[in-house]
Amino acid sequence: MQSNWWSASAKALDIDARHQAEQRQLQLTKPPGALGKLEQLAVDLASMQGNERPQLNSIYISIFAADHGVADEGVSAFPQAVTAEMIRNFSNGGAAICVLAGRCQAGFEVVNLGTVVELGEMAAVVDARIAPSTENFRRQAAMSSAQLQSALQAGADAAERALEAGAQLFVGGEMGIANTTSASAIAAALLQLDPVQLTGPGTGVDAQGVLHKAEVISAALTLHQSELYQSELPCPMDILRCLGGFEIAALAGAYIRCAQLGVTVLVDGFISTVAALMAKAINVEVLGWLLYSHGSAEPGHRLVLEALDAEPLLNLNMRLGEGSGAALVVPLLQSACALHNQMATFAEAAVSAKQ
Amino acid sequence: MQSNWWSASAKALDIDARHQAEQRQLQLTKPPGALGKLEQLAVDLASMQGNERPQLNSIYISIFAADHGVADEGVSAFPQAVTAEMIRNFSNGGAAICVLAGRCQAGFEVVNLGTVVELGEMAAVVDARIAPSTENFRRQAAMSSAQLQSALQAGADAAERALEAGAQLFVGGEMGIANTTSASAIAAALLQLDPVQLTGPGTGVDAQGVLHKAEVISAALTLHQSELYQSELPCPMDILRCLGGFEIAALAGAYIRCAQLGVTVLVDGFISTVAALMAKAINVEVLGWLLYSHGSAEPGHRLVLEALDAEPLLNLNMRLGEGSGAALVVPLLQSACALHNQMATFAEAAVSAKQ
Repeated sequence: MQSNWWSASAKALDIDARHQAEQRQLQLTKPPGALGKLEQLAVDLASMQGNERPQLNSIYISIFAADHGVADEGVSAFPQAVTAEMIRNFSNGGAAICVLAGRCQAGFEVVNLGTVVELGEMAAVVDARIAPSTENFRRQAAMSSAQLQSALQAGADAAERALEAGAQLFVGGEMGIANTTSASAIAAALLQLDPVQLTGPGTGVDAQGVLHKAEVISAALTLHQSELYQSELPCPMDILRCLGGFEIAALAGAYIRCAQLGVTVLVDGFISTVAALMAKAINVEVLGWLLYSHGSAEPGHRLVLEALDAEPLLNLNMRLGEGSGAALVVPLLQSACALHNQMATFAEAAVSAKQ
Repeated sequence: MQSNWWSASAKALDIDARHQAEQRQLQLTKPPGALGKLEQLAVDLASMQGNERPQLNSIYISIFAADHGVADEGVSAFPQAVTAEMIRNFSNGGAAICVLAGRCQAGFEVVNLGTVVELGEMAAVVDARIAPSTENFRRQAAMSSAQLQSALQAGADAAERALEAGAQLFVGGEMGIANTTSASAIAAALLQLDPVQLTGPGTGVDAQGVLHKAEVISAALTLHQSELYQSELPCPMDILRCLGGFEIAALAGAYIRCAQLGVTVLVDGFISTVAALMAKAINVEVLGWLLYSHGSAEPGHRLVLEALDAEPLLNLNMRLGEGSGAALVVPLLQSACALHNQMATFAEAAVSAKQ
């Protein structure tokens, strides 16, 4: 793949299929618009799939896991060993995302981008290790340019595997102790907002801890200022490299590659949405291929969603990551397709239309 | 059954099972609270089922259908024949609720309480006809006391059939041209609010039509004032009898009987929530057995939910009725149970807990 593959165009959406799907919605035995957002979902999926009757039978879930140097700053409620321990839990089927993946019969893999506690081979885990962790971005750039390219590529590779498996929907998830700190920093840099507005409890630090996280991020933004703000607007790639998260870079790479390959993406919570914001900054065409699953309890999520002009389908105050919110929403999308494809039309059912 | 069966106690909730389920939630491999509302759902279901690990494998959907005399006032966007036509569509599997019932492998029945266009026998349709329609409540009481008792009983019978079928969750739906007018009138009377606040487009009347609906309701409330307001607070049963809706009375009866039998109820949209408000007014113990699925696009729904102190799980701007919003939410409840029952604990997965 070319070194700047992420700039290539997304697959074009199919306007004819969209119009046909819109027409079909008007003929189904219900008042026009009565299925609310489910109607728009079916129409959007029709335009992505180039099919008046879109299907979501094949789902692919990739969880990107990596450790973060910034964990050294004491920004998480959980010890760093949990990243590796959770990879084992994913592999053994014990995590929330495993239960939800099973319920939607999704293809499921974990992409290990590097953990401080070394792991051997495990079922369903793809070895894409870049380093045991990113560097502590409070002290230096989180990663090198070469590491950033590897992380983006690891995401693109997952998108290729999803396509290969026939996936009609890609769910990316993440695991990495301290990764809300990285995500909040990236969002603050991209949106040029005060980190306080974008920092929250993550896995559950207290109010004092949230303040500390925001201070760490502010200090990091000051540290990297000269590098990031050489021009008026910082380069997204530099933000991603400096403030890191191998798994956040991989998610952004996966989203962009999915858009290029024509695989619909269902975005999960705060960290995944920051990855989507980064993907948009790198290649705006990704937006046409993103659906948004849920609004999370992490307070910065709302601002990031607003920046993407995105309205998620539900808000259950979840804040787990792992792709869990997105996987939970998959049955709603499948129901939107089933209603669109299987309901009788007014003519078929001999039901009188609106007066 | 006694003539005042609706006043009998609801089945008691199991406090021990609730505590056990709460304890289990704290041991699962996730930060405490990270599954948001899904955790509370699992705990609530545990207390209803008397089982630390609640199951939702068996769902029962009853759609109550009936015609409304108030349709004569020109309050609906659809002709009255649609009620009967949609019963046929339900029976033939072409309606939205049929598609969604199929997706959750629910038991499914339509309870015909009476339509202006007569129908013969049809698959999955229970004959519980009371009259071809209610009377026009703009001119007289919608039904007699005997008719009201029949309608409540038809709902109770559906709850009994659900229990017989082993249902762990009951979804009630409704169909009846002009039934948002009846529901808005009942809500206005119960909440003592101006009908304008509770009246909306229903199947899709325009702004002028909404105003007309509200005027019809106001006139009806004035007409029935002397009967309803003999004491300071009107009797809920009198409100239900005067402002009618055989299917709304049946829903209220079904909800109350489900609570007595210990079958969890998942409430659908505006009309179903008005039926829940009526059920609460008749027998407050019903509340412990109700879950709320979605906030609908019908503008009065929010006020009725607030009066029940209820927060629905999602808001997709649906406004179809038929139980469709509730059926859509069933997989979310099932996921809440699956996560609760199948996730590994910290001990089982050897994952480090919070620091």
